[in-house]
Amino acid sequence: MSIETFPNPNPERRYVITHVNPEFTSVCPKTGLPDFGTVTLQYIPAETCIELKALKYYYLDFRSKGIFYEAITNKILDDMLAVCTPQWMKVTTEWSVRGGIHSKIEAEYTKP
Amino acid sequence: MSIETFPNPNPERRYVITHVNPEFTSVCPKTGLPDFGTVTLQYIPAETCIELKALKYYYLDFRSKGIFYEAITNKILDDMLAVCTPQWMKVTTEWSVRGGIHSKIEAEYTKP
Amino acid sequence: MSIETFPNPNPERRYVITHVNPEFTSVCPKTGLPDFGTVTLQYIPAETCIELKALKYYYLDFRSKGIFYEAITNKILDDMLAVCTPQWMKVTTEWSVRGGIHSKIEAEYTKP
Amino acid sequence: MSIETFPNPNPERRYVITHVNPEFTSVCPKTGLPDFGTVTLQYIPAETCIELKALKYYYLDFRSKGIFYEAITNKILDDMLAVCTPQWMKVTTEWSVRGGIHSKIEAEYTKP
Amino acid sequence: MSIETFPNPNPERRYVITHVNPEFTSVCPKTGLPDFGTVTLQYIPAETCIELKALKYYYLDFRSKGIFYEAITNKILDDMLAVCTPQWMKVTTEWSVRGGIHSKIEAEYTKP
Amino acid sequence: MSIETFPNPNPERRYVITHVNPEFTSVCPKTGLPDFGTVTLQYIPAETCIELKALKYYYLDFRSKGIFYEAITNKILDDMLAVCTPQWMKVTTEWSVRGGIHSKIEAEYTKP
Amino acid sequence: MSIETFPNPNPERRYVITHVNPEFTSVCPKTGLPDFGTVTLQYIPAETCIELKALKYYYLDFRSKGIFYEAITNKILDDMLAVCTPQWMKVTTEWSVRGGIHSKIEAEYTKP
Amino acid sequence: MSIETFPNPNPERRYVITHVNPEFTSVCPKTGLPDFGTVTLQYIPAETCIELKALKYYYLDFRSKGIFYEAITNKILDDMLAVCTPQWMKVTTEWSVRGGIHSKIEAEYTKP
Amino acid sequence: MSIETFPNPNPERRYVITHVNPEFTSVCPKTGLPDFGTVTLQYIPAETCIELKALKYYYLDFRSKGIFYEAITNKILDDMLAVCTPQWMKVTTEWSVRGGIHSKIEAEYTKP
Amino acid sequence: MSIETFPNPNPERRYVITHVNPEFTSVCPKTGLPDFGTVTLQYIPAETCIELKALKYYYLDFRSKGIFYEAITNKILDDMLAVCTPQWMKVTTEWSVRGGIHSKIEAEYTKP
Repeated sequence: MSIETFPNPNPERRYVITHVNPEFTSVCPKTGLPDFGTVTLQYIPAETCIELKALKYYYLDFRSKGIFYEAITNKILDDMLAVCTPQWMKVTTEWSVRGGIHSKIEAEYTKP
Repeated sequence: MSIETFPNPNPERRYVITHVNPEFTSVCPKTGLPDFGTVTLQYIPAETCIELKALKYYYLDFRSKGIFYEAITNKILDDMLAVCTPQWMKVTTEWSVRGGIHSKIEAEYTKP
Repeated sequence: MSIETFPNPNPERRYVITHVNPEFTSVCPKTGLPDFGTVTLQYIPAETCIELKALKYYYLDFRSKGIFYEAITNKILDDMLAVCTPQWMKVTTEWSVRGGIHSKIEAEYTKP
Repeated sequence: MSIETFPNPNPERRYVITHVNPEFTSVCPKTGLPDFGTVTLQYIPAETCIELKALKYYYLDFRSKGIFYEAITNKILDDMLAVCTPQWMKVTTEWSVRGGIHSKIEAEYTKP
Repeated sequence: MSIETFPNPNPERRYVITHVNPEFTSVCPKTGLPDFGTVTLQYIPAETCIELKALKYYYLDFRSKGIFYEAITNKILDDMLAVCTPQWMKVTTEWSVRGGIHSKIEAEYTKP
Repeated sequence: MSIETFPNPNPERRYVITHVNPEFTSVCPKTGLPDFGTVTLQYIPAETCIELKALKYYYLDFRSKGIFYEAITNKILDDMLAVCTPQWMKVTTEWSVRGGIHSKIEAEYTKP
Repeated sequence: MSIETFPNPNPERRYVITHVNPEFTSVCPKTGLPDFGTVTLQYIPAETCIELKALKYYYLDFRSKGIFYEAITNKILDDMLAVCTPQWMKVTTEWSVRGGIHSKIEAEYTKP
Repeated sequence: MSIETFPNPNPERRYVITHVNPEFTSVCPKTGLPDFGTVTLQYIPAETCIELKALKYYYLDFRSKGIFYEAITNKILDDMLAVCTPQWMKVTTEWSVRGGIHSKIEAEYTKP
Repeated sequence: MSIETFPNPNPERRYVITHVNPEFTSVCPKTGLPDFGTVTLQYIPAETCIELKALKYYYLDFRSKGIFYEAITNKILDDMLAVCTPQWMKVTTEWSVRGGIHSKIEAEYTKP
Repeated sequence: MSIETFPNPNPERRYVITHVNPEFTSVCPKTGLPDFGTVTLQYIPAETCIELKALKYYYLDFRSKGIFYEAITNKILDDMLAVCTPQWMKVTTEWSVRGGIHSKIEAEYTKP
C-alpha cells in the first residue's frame, strides 16, 4: 500500500497530530448491511507525516469492504504504522447503534 | 451459559473494546417494578471476542429477572469473564431516577 | 379499562398538563424484540384529571405486549380520552434507533 | 394575602416580565414526601409590578404545604392575579421525576 | 418501485409519523466522492403507512448513486408520495460540510 | 443624549439588526449591590443605524447607576427609540440569579 | 457578477434550500481588523439553483474587503437575487464578539 | 443512627457504588432561608451496602435542619462511615447560587 | 485586610472547598474599560474556613480597580492565603473575549 | 521578531496562563484556499508575560501566509518560546473540516 507522506517539519520535537473522520462507512460481513462510524487517528510523527488528502482516499476504500469493527481498527493501525513508522500511534473507531448497542474500539502502538 | 464468541483478530496487541447498551431493563426484587439502565461493557480481549448479537440476547434475559443493581453489575462481570477470559474487563451500570436518586455501579477485573 | 382520576381543581380555566415517561417499553410484533421509547401525554382537562400513579401502571401493561409504534400511539390516545374526556389531548411517542432509523409519532384530539 | 408591589414604571407600554424560580419545594399530600420543581411566572403588568423579594418569600410558604401539582399551579396564578391585576399572566411549573415520570403544568390568564 | 406498506390503524384521525435516518450516504455526481447526510421523512398517513424496514432498504439503494442534494430530496418525496398517497408529507435532508459549507433541503407536499 | 449613528445602507428594505451584550452591569437601588445581565437590542432600521462602539459606551454608563430591572429595560428602549426612530425595536434583559430567582424583561415598540 | 447556477430539478414545487457557511471573514472598514462570521443563505428556487462551489468562491472574495455588517448582509442578498431570481430568499449573518457585543443581521426578500 | 443495610453480594471484589441525589435541601443557619443542593455519595463496600430507600429518608431529615455546607458534607460522610464501614467513601455536595456564588464541598475517606 | 472566617468543623480531615463566582468585574488598566470574568477559589482548609458573604464583598472591591488578569489572579491567591493559611489553594480566573481572544489564569499553592 | 511583553508580576510562583483564539485563519499552500482554526497558547511564565494585544497582531500576520497545519503549530511554539523563554509552553491548533476530516495538532515544550 502506498499513501502519500511528507517530511515532518519538526522531527526533533515530540508533538501529537490528530485527524478525526466522522464520515467512515464499511460493510458488515455478517449481514451485508453498511456500518457507519467515526475514525480518529492520532500519532507522534518521526520522520514523516501522513498527507491529509491521501488519508481521506485510504478511508474511502473501506466503503464496500466487508469487515468487523475489531478487524478494521487493527488494520487501520497496521496500515498507518507501515506508512509512517511513528513514535506513537492510536486508532479509535466509534460506531452507530446496531441492535440497540453502540461500540468503540481503541488500539494503540508505542515505539519500543 | 454459552455466548457466541469469535477469535480475536489481533491477540498479540492490547486494545480496548467498548459496548454500550442504553436499553437495559430488569425488575426491582423489592417492588416488582421495572428498572431501566445503561450497561457499558469494556474489555481487553485475550484469545476470544464477544459476539455483539449474542451480547444483545444475553442482556434481554434480564427483562423479567428480579435483581438488585449491585448484584446485576457483578453478575454481568462474572458471566462475561467466564465467556472470554480477557486481560482486563469493566462493567458500568447507570440507572434511572428512583425515589429522587440515580445510581451507578462500576466493577472491574484485571488478570493477575 | 379503569384508571383512577381526580376532580379537576380548576375546571373553569383552560390549562395544560404534561406527563413525560422516558421509561416506556413494549415488544415489536414482527421480531419479538423489545422496543424502547418516551411517551409524552399532554391535555387540557375538563371535569377530571388523570392520577399520576395510575398512569404509570397503565404504561407498565405494555411491557410484554406486541404492538407497532403507530398502533400504540393511537391506543394510548383512545384509552386516555375514554378515561377523562378532556378538552384537548396529544400523545407523542419517540423511539430508540431500529435499523439505523429513529421514529416519532404524534396524535392529537380536540373536542369538537 | 399581601405581597409587596411597586408602581409599574411604564404602565402605557405592554411589556413582559418573567421570574424563574428553580428552587421550589412543596409536599405531596398523598405520600407526605417532598416535591421539587421550577416555577416560572410571566406577566404583562398593568398598574403594579410584583416585588422580587416578596415573591421569593411567597414561594417559601409552600415548603411544608401538602398540595398537588395541578392545584399549586392554579393557586399561584390566582394569588398573583389578586396581587397585581395584570393584563396577561402565565404560571408554568416543571417537576422532578416521580415514578419514572416528570410533569409540567401551564396555566394562563388574559384580561378580557 | 414497490415498497412494503401496511394499513393505517387509525385512518380517520390525522396524526404525524416521523422517521429520521442519520446514516444516509450517496455519491456526488461532480466529484465522485461520497456525500453523507440525515434524511427525515414526515407524513400524515391516509390509507397506508410505510413499513420501517422497507424504508431502510429504499435508502440503501442511494449508496452508489450519483445525484445532487436538491434532486435526492425531491426524488425521495416523489417516491414516497407514490408509495402511500398521504394527506401531507415533508422530506428534509441535512448534509455534512463540503468546502466549508453545510446544506439543508426541505420539500413538502400537501394533498389538495 | 447623543449616540453616534450612520445612514442605513438599505432603507428601502425591512431587515432586522440584533446586538447582544452579555457584559451588562448596573447597581440594585435597594441593596447597593451590583446586578449582572445580558442586554439584547433588536430593531428594523428606518433612516439610521446605531453605531456599535457608541452602543457599547452607552451601556457602560449604567455601571454605577442604581436602577431596577423593569426601569432599565424601558429606559434603554426609550433612549434607543430617540436615537434612531426605527420601524420596530425590542429590548430584552436577562439577569443573573438573585435570591434563587432569575428574571427576564422584554419590551417592544412598533411604529404605528 | 457571474456565479454558476444549474436548472432547478423541480421548478413546479416550492421547497427551501439552506447553505450555512461558518467560515466567513471580511475586514472592518473602521479598524482595518478582520471580522469573522457565519453566513446562512436560504431560498425557494424558481428556474435556477446556485452552485455550491461557486457560492464558496463568491464568499472568499470578501476576505480582504472593508465593509460593515449591515452592508455585507444586504449586498449578499442583492447579489444572490440577481444570480437566481428566486421566489423567496433570506440572508442571515452572525458575527463574533467585538467590544463585548455579538451581532446578527437578517435580510429577507419575497417575490411580489 | 440506624440506616438499613444489606450484605454486599461480592465482598471479595473492589467495586464502586455511586448514589446521586439532586433533591437535597437544608436550612442556612445564618439567614434561616433554605439551601438547595445535589449530594453525591460514592463508596467501595466492605461487608454491607447502604439500602437506597433508607438513604433517601436519611437525606429527608435535613429538610428543616440549620447547618452550613462544610458541616453537612462532613456529617454525611461521618454518618455513612458509621453505617457501613466501607473500604473507601466520598461525599460531594454542590450548591445553588447564593449571593452570586455557587459552591462545592468534597470530603473523602480511605480505610487505612 | 480582614475577611471574616469561621473555625473548620473538621480540621483533622483533608477535604476540598470550591467557590465559583461568575460575576467578577474589574477594569483594564490599559484601556480603562471593564473586564468580566469567572473566579474560582478552591482550597483544603486547615484551622479556618472563609465565610461566603465576606468573600463576595472582597470580590466587589475589584469593581473599579485597574489591574491585569495575571496580577488579579496572584493577588486573590495571596490575599486568601493570608486570610486562612490553608493546606492547599488554587485560584482560576476565566475572562470574556477581548480582541477575539479569551484567557484563563491558574495559580496554585501547596503548603510545604 | 519582536512581540511586546511585560514583567511577570509573580516570577517566584509557577502558574499557568492560557490564551484561546478561535478566529485564526491562514492559507493552505496546496490549494490556495483559506484554513480556519482555533489556536490555544498555554504557558508557565518565567521573567516575562506575552502582551495580549501583541499576540493578537502576531496571529493576524498568518492571514495570507501559505503554511501547513503541522508547520504553523511548531512555528507559533518556536516564535513564542523566543519571545518569553517560559518554564513550560503548549500550542494547540484545532482546524475546521477539510475533505470530511477535522484535525488537531499539539506541540509542547518543557524547560530542561
